Amino acid sequence: MNTHLETAGISPRALEIADKVEAFVRAEVVPFERDPRLGAHGPSEELADELKALGRAAGVMTPHILEGGGHLTQRETAAVLIRSGLSPLGPLACHTCAPDEGNMFLLGKVGSPELKERFLGRMVDGSMRSAFFMTEPAEEGGAGSDPSMMQTTCRMDGNHWVINGRKTYITGADGAGMGIIMAKSGDGACMFLVDLPDPAIRIERVLDTIDSSMPGGHAVIAIDNLRVPADQMLGEAGEGFKYAQVRLAPARLSHCMRWLGACIRAHEIATDYANRRMAFGKPLVDHEGVGFMLAENRIDLKQAELMIYWCADVLDTGAPGTTESSMAKVAVSEALMRVADRCVQCMGGQGVTADTIVEQVFREIRAFRIYDGPTEVHKWSLAKKIKREWKAQAEA
Amino acid sequence: MNTHLETAGISPRALEIADKVEAFVRAEVVPFERDPRLGAHGPSEELADELKALGRAAGVMTPHILEGGGHLTQRETAAVLIRSGLSPLGPLACHTCAPDEGNMFLLGKVGSPELKERFLGRMVDGSMRSAFFMTEPAEEGGAGSDPSMMQTTCRMDGNHWVINGRKTYITGADGAGMGIIMAKSGDGACMFLVDLPDPAIRIERVLDTIDSSMPGGHAVIAIDNLRVPADQMLGEAGEGFKYAQVRLAPARLSHCMRWLGACIRAHEIATDYANRRMAFGKPLVDHEGVGFMLAENRIDLKQAELMIYWCADVLDTGAPGTTESSMAKVAVSEALMRVADRCVQCMGGQGVTADTIVEQVFREIRAFRIYDGPTEVHKWSLAKKIKREWKAQAEA
Amino acid sequence: MNTHLETAGISPRALEIADKVEAFVRAEVVPFERDPRLGAHGPSEELADELKALGRAAGVMTPHILEGGGHLTQRETAAVLIRSGLSPLGPLACHTCAPDEGNMFLLGKVGSPELKERFLGRMVDGSMRSAFFMTEPAEEGGAGSDPSMMQTTCRMDGNHWVINGRKTYITGADGAGMGIIMAKSGDGACMFLVDLPDPAIRIERVLDTIDSSMPGGHAVIAIDNLRVPADQMLGEAGEGFKYAQVRLAPARLSHCMRWLGACIRAHEIATDYANRRMAFGKPLVDHEGVGFMLAENRIDLKQAELMIYWCADVLDTGAPGTTESSMAKVAVSEALMRVADRCVQCMGGQGVTADTIVEQVFREIRAFRIYDGPTEVHKWSLAKKIKREWKAQAEA
Amino acid sequence: MNTHLETAGISPRALEIADKVEAFVRAEVVPFERDPRLGAHGPSEELADELKALGRAAGVMTPHILEGGGHLTQRETAAVLIRSGLSPLGPLACHTCAPDEGNMFLLGKVGSPELKERFLGRMVDGSMRSAFFMTEPAEEGGAGSDPSMMQTTCRMDGNHWVINGRKTYITGADGAGMGIIMAKSGDGACMFLVDLPDPAIRIERVLDTIDSSMPGGHAVIAIDNLRVPADQMLGEAGEGFKYAQVRLAPARLSHCMRWLGACIRAHEIATDYANRRMAFGKPLVDHEGVGFMLAENRIDLKQAELMIYWCADVLDTGAPGTTESSMAKVAVSEALMRVADRCVQCMGGQGVTADTIVEQVFREIRAFRIYDGPTEVHKWSLAKKIKREWKAQAEA
Repeated sequence: MNTHLETAGISPRALEIADKVEAFVRAEVVPFERDPRLGAHGPSEELADELKALGRAAGVMTPHILEGGGHLTQRETAAVLIRSGLSPLGPLACHTCAPDEGNMFLLGKVGSPELKERFLGRMVDGSMRSAFFMTEPAEEGGAGSDPSMMQTTCRMDGNHWVINGRKTYITGADGAGMGIIMAKSGDGACMFLVDLPDPAIRIERVLDTIDSSMPGGHAVIAIDNLRVPADQMLGEAGEGFKYAQVRLAPARLSHCMRWLGACIRAHEIATDYANRRMAFGKPLVDHEGVGFMLAENRIDLKQAELMIYWCADVLDTGAPGTTESSMAKVAVSEALMRVADRCVQCMGGQGVTADTIVEQVFREIRAFRIYDGPTEVHKWSLAKKIKREWKAQAEA
Repeated sequence: MNTHLETAGISPRALEIADKVEAFVRAEVVPFERDPRLGAHGPSEELADELKALGRAAGVMTPHILEGGGHLTQRETAAVLIRSGLSPLGPLACHTCAPDEGNMFLLGKVGSPELKERFLGRMVDGSMRSAFFMTEPAEEGGAGSDPSMMQTTCRMDGNHWVINGRKTYITGADGAGMGIIMAKSGDGACMFLVDLPDPAIRIERVLDTIDSSMPGGHAVIAIDNLRVPADQMLGEAGEGFKYAQVRLAPARLSHCMRWLGACIRAHEIATDYANRRMAFGKPLVDHEGVGFMLAENRIDLKQAELMIYWCADVLDTGAPGTTESSMAKVAVSEALMRVADRCVQCMGGQGVTADTIVEQVFREIRAFRIYDGPTEVHKWSLAKKIKREWKAQAEA
Repeated sequence: MNTHLETAGISPRALEIADKVEAFVRAEVVPFERDPRLGAHGPSEELADELKALGRAAGVMTPHILEGGGHLTQRETAAVLIRSGLSPLGPLACHTCAPDEGNMFLLGKVGSPELKERFLGRMVDGSMRSAFFMTEPAEEGGAGSDPSMMQTTCRMDGNHWVINGRKTYITGADGAGMGIIMAKSGDGACMFLVDLPDPAIRIERVLDTIDSSMPGGHAVIAIDNLRVPADQMLGEAGEGFKYAQVRLAPARLSHCMRWLGACIRAHEIATDYANRRMAFGKPLVDHEGVGFMLAENRIDLKQAELMIYWCADVLDTGAPGTTESSMAKVAVSEALMRVADRCVQCMGGQGVTADTIVEQVFREIRAFRIYDGPTEVHKWSLAKKIKREWKAQAEA
Repeated sequence: MNTHLETAGISPRALEIADKVEAFVRAEVVPFERDPRLGAHGPSEELADELKALGRAAGVMTPHILEGGGHLTQRETAAVLIRSGLSPLGPLACHTCAPDEGNMFLLGKVGSPELKERFLGRMVDGSMRSAFFMTEPAEEGGAGSDPSMMQTTCRMDGNHWVINGRKTYITGADGAGMGIIMAKSGDGACMFLVDLPDPAIRIERVLDTIDSSMPGGHAVIAIDNLRVPADQMLGEAGEGFKYAQVRLAPARLSHCMRWLGACIRAHEIATDYANRRMAFGKPLVDHEGVGFMLAENRIDLKQAELMIYWCADVLDTGAPGTTESSMAKVAVSEALMRVADRCVQCMGGQGVTADTIVEQVFREIRAFRIYDGPTEVHKWSLAKKIKREWKAQAEA
C-alpha cells in the first residue's frame, strides 16, 4: 500500500473500496503490464475482457458506483480512482476508465429512466465499452477546443433524427457497444445514445498516437445519414452543451485521479531504481541530482492529490466546478508531466525502454496535457473569469 | 474580503477572528504601506508601536493566542495568519510576525511556568519584540543550514552559564526586549532566555538585505562573556536541537501563511492594473500573455493554500511534521516566488517601483526562499527520507 | 581576467580596449562597490564624478567611441561593454552606461553637424549625463510598451516648438545636462535635444525602484510649455519613431552586454563562496544541488554571450536587427535572471545581503526584464513576425 | 530552404553541400515519413537501403566526408548535419546518422591503415551499418554513465583476444555489418573492431524504446567467448577510454546537429498548423498563448544553433572540447525538448498523432536527453571542472 496517499477525511466505505482496489491492481493487474496483447492502439479486446473478468471476480468492477445505482461522492471517487490508476491497466480492469466513467456519470445524471434501463446497466457491469463523439477534424475547421465550431448536424425526419458529419479522436469507438453523439440542430447542440457498431458510423482509421492505454485507441469517424429514433435523444434538443458541461468537470477530474495513480507508481519504480543502481561510487539516490528529483516528485504528487480533493469537494457541494476543474486539470496535468519526466530521467537509459511502465506513463501524460482541453484553453477561460470577477467587484 | 480563500473546514471561531483580521488589515494597515518611516531595515520602532496600538484597539493583537493562553490549532492559525499577511505590515500590527510568533510558540510549549510568567505575557501583549539567536557567520564556518557546525559555546560557571560566540542574520535583535540564544555545551546544544539589550550582546551591524519588512532588520551579533543565570535555561541542557525542532515546523509554516497573504494581495493589485491599463488597443488582461499569468497565479495561490492547510492538519495531529513542513516550505515559497514575479511583470515599469507593495513582496519572497532553510536543504532532507523509507520497505 | 569570455573572432583593437577596461574595472571600480555614497536612487553625483575621473585617468572613458568620433563595430562594442559591466559601477566609470550610450549613438547617427557640435562632445567626454524622455505615466493612459499611445504634444509657435506632457521612468533626468524628448506633432512623432535643467521640465519625484545602479534614478517629469528652438529638433518632424528604432536595437543590446558582465561577476562571487563554505561535511560546491546551479550558470552565461555576438553581427551588416535584438533581449534577460537567482541561492543568507553585489545584480536584472520592452512585448512582436513570414511563404 | 539558419561564417563548399542536402531531404526523404515500413524498432532494412540508394543517387551519401577521405571541419559538418536532420529519416538517407557517423570518425582518427582499409570504406559508402558496444546492463551493475564500472572483459589467448560480457542499448546492432567493442583487460580498457554478425555475439532482445528512428533499434547483447584476432584491436591496449573520448565530443555534437534539424522542421509544421487552424474566432497564431510558444521556439532554436557552432569551433582548434561539448549537449537537448514539447502543444490533438513527425520528434528528443550522458552527468562533470578551475585560480 502506498503510505503517502491521504486517508484523513476519506469515508470508511470509500477507504475500504480503495484498499480493495489497490490490492487488486498491485497483485492482479500489474503482472499484465508487459503482456504481448498490449498494442500501439491499446490492449486487445481479449486482454481487456480478461482484465475485466479479474476485476469482476475481485469485486472491484465499477467500484465507484454502488449496488442499486448510487454513486460515491467525488471525494470518495477520488480515493478509489487514484488507486485504480496505479497501473495503466487498472482503470480498464476496474472499469473506471475514460470515456466510460464519464459516459456513465452523464447518463446517470441526465438520462431518462428508459434510456438508463436500456444502456446504463450494460455499461456499469462492464459488458460493453462506450464512446463519446464530440471532437471534429481540424483540417475541416471542426470543433476542437472551441465547441462553437461544431459541424456535425442532426435534423428531424419523422420520428427519427438524421445525423451527418465527421468526428475524430473518438476514444474507444473501435469495439464500443454504444456511443453518445453530439450534433447541431437548428435549436442548438443535441446528444444521442446509439448502439454500436452501426453501418452508418464508419471508422475511417484508428489514429497512431503517443498514448496507448485505451482499448480501441482513438478513431476518425464518418457519420453518414445515421438515423436515430427520437427517443434516443439524451435530454432535450438544444441542451447539448449544457449536458457536456455536466460531464465535463467530473470527467476531467477523473482523468486527474487515474493519472495521479499512474505517476505515483512510476515514482515508486524510479525510487526503487535510484536506490539500487550505483554510479560514481554510490547509489543514484545519494546523488543530489537524482535525490532532488525524487524529492520534487513527492511534492508535486502531494500537490496534485490536494488539488483533486479540493475540486472534488467543490463538485460535492453541487456547484458546477468549471473554474475549479480547469484549475485542477492544469495544475495536475502539468505537475504529473514533471513527475513522469523526472522518473524517466532518474532511470537513465532504462527510463526510455518499455521494460517498466515509466516510459508509457510519460507518453500518456503528454497526451493528457491536451485531452479534455489543452492547458492554454483552461488558462484562457480562467483569465476571462478573472476579468469578469474584477468587473463585478469594480462595479460593486 | 478575498472570496477565493478557503472557508470550508475552518472553525467558526477561527473564521470570525480571520474576518476581523482581514477587515482590520485592509482598512487600517494598508494606508501605512507608503509611510515614510518604512526604512531599508524595516519599519521604525515608532511606526511599529503605532501599528501595534491600532491592532490592540481593533482587538486583533496576537489573535491566534486566546485569552487565558490557549492557542488556535494550526489549521485555525493558518486562516488567521494568511489574512494578517494581506499587507506586509499586517503581521506587525497583529503581532503574528516572525520571529515573535515562533518564539511565543516555543516558550508556550517548552517553557517552565516561571519562565512563561517572566517572559511570555510581555511577548503576547506585544509590548516587546523578541529575537532568536541561532545562525552564525559563514566566513567563520559557523552554523547555517547545518546546525552541527554551531560554534557559540556555553559553559557553567557557578550558578550561571557563560556564553561566547557570534551570530548573524538575527532578525529583530536591534530593539528587541528579549532573546532566545542557542549555544553548545559539553552536553550538547542549549537554549537560554535573556533580557535585551545586554552589554555583553553587541550589535556589530545591521545587515543591508533585500527584504525590508521586519523591524530591527537582521543583525550581526557578538556575544562576549554573557552570563545567564542557570534558571534562564529553556528546558534541559543538551536538548537544544530538540527544542529547535519543536519551533521549526510551525514557525516555517507560519512564514508560508503570512507570505501567502502578501502574494494574494500582490495578485489583487496586479489584477486591478491589468484590467485598467490599455496596450495595443485593449486592456492588458485581454492579452493572453498577461491574462495567462494571472490565471497561473490563481492556480499557484490555491496550491500554496492547500499545502499550508495540509501541513497544518498534520501538525494538529501532534506529529512533528518535519517532512511535511519541508514539503510545504519548498512548494509554497517557490510558488509564491512565481506569483510575485508574475505580478511584477504584469505591471511593467510600474511593477518595479515602490508605488505599490508588489515590488516589496517580490523582494521579501526572494529572501523567504532562503530563510528557514533554503529550498535545496529541504530537498536534501526529503531525499534522505525517501531513501530511509525505501530501505525500511525493502527490508520488510 | 575572466577566461571564459570569447576572444576568438574579436578584433585585436577591441580586445586591447576590452582588456584595459576589465583590468580597470576589477582594480579600480570594484573597491567602490560598498561606498556609502551609493543610495537607493543610484550613486551620488559626487561618486559618479569620482568614478568618471578614474576612468578618464585610466584611458577608458567612452572606450567604444574612438578618437575622432569613430565607433567600434557592435561586435567590438560587445567585447568592451561586457567587461565594463563586471561591476555595476563599471559602466558609469567608463561612461558606457544607459541611457547615455544610446543617446550618443542616436545623436551620432541622426544629428546634424551643428547638433553634434553642440551636444555630442560633452556627452562623449563624460562631462555631463543625458536623459531620454519617452515613457509616459500608465495612470493617464500614456505610452509605455505601445508607443502609439503617446500623449506628450509639440506644436510650432514661431521659430520654436512648444512641448507639453508628462513622462515617467526617465532614467537619470535628475542631474542630467541634456535630454532627448519625444513628443507628437500633427505630422507624427518628433525628437528634440534640450539643455537641462530647464524650469519648464519639472521633476515631480524620483521613483523608488527595485534597481539602484543609475545616477539620478528614474524620475516622473512634467513638461509645461517648454519652448525649444526649431533647430534643436533631431532630424525631421514626424520621423521620431523611425529614430527611436535606430536607437532601440543597439541600446537594447548594450543593456544585454553590461548586465552579462554583471552576472559573470556575480557568478564568480557565488563560485568562490561555494568553494569556501562548508555544509554537511563538504564544501557547498561538492553538493550537486549547488554544483549543478553553477554548471547551469556557465551554460546560461555562454548562451547569453553567443546571442549578443550574433545580434551584434546582424547590426554590423547594417540591418535594423529589430527581430534579432528582440530575440537577444528576451533570451539574455531571462537567462541572466536565472543566473542571478542561482547566485543568490548558492550563497544562502549571504546572498540576500548587500555584502556582495550579488543581491544588487539580482534586483537590477529583475528590472531589466521590463526595461526596453518586457519579455512579453518582444514575444508578441516575434509572433507577428512569424505570422507575416508564414503568409509571405504561403503566398509564394 | 529554411531562411533562419546561419550562413554567415560557413564556407562556400559547406554551404553548397548543405543546400544540396536540404533540397534532397525536403524533396525526396520527407515523402517517406509515413512509410508503413517504419516500425517501433526503426525503419526496416529494406526501407533503409531504399533511402540510402536515393542519397547515393543524389550525391549526398556521407556528405561530410570528402572524396579521398578528408573530413569537413566541425563547423562545416554542423551546417550539413543540421540540414540532414530536417527529417528523422534524413540522417539515414545521407548516412550521417548515429552511431555510424561517430564510428567512422573514430576509425578515421585512431585506426591503423590496415584497419581503415578493411572497414572504413564499407562504412563510408553506406554499404553496411555499424554498432558501438559500450553501455552495460544496469541490473548487473554494469557501465552506464560511469565507465569505470565496465564489466566486459578481454584477455589474451595466443594471438587472439577473448571477450566476454553483456552489453545493452547497443544501437543498430541488429543488422550491423561491423562493430566496435569495448572491454577491460588487465592493462585497462581496450577497443576491438569486429565483423558482424558473429555467433559469439548474441542479440538477446531488441528493446522497446520511446524512440524509433534508428534501424535495428537498441539491443541487449551477450558476448560469449568471442575470439578476435589481435590485429583487430583499435590502437593500443589500455587506451580504450582515451579513444572513447576522441569519439565522444564530436559524436555528442553531431547528435545536437541532427536533432536541431528535426526540431526546426517540427517548428515549421507547428507554425503552419497555427496559421491555418481557427479557434475562438481567429487563427491559433493570433492567440498569444500559441504565438508566444512559436516565438520561444525561434529563440530556443537560434540558441541551440549558436551553441553547436561555438562548440564546433572549439573542436576545430584541435582542443578535446569535453567541457564545451557537455555544455552544448545539455543546452541543446534541453532547448530542443522545450521546442518539441511546444510544437506538440500548439497542434493540440493533432500534435499527439503520428500524422506529422512532430510526435516522433518529441519522443526522440526525450531519449536524446539521456543518450550520450544524461543532463545530470554533464552538469556533474561541469561542477567538477568549476571546482578545479577555482582551485587553480585560488592557488595562483
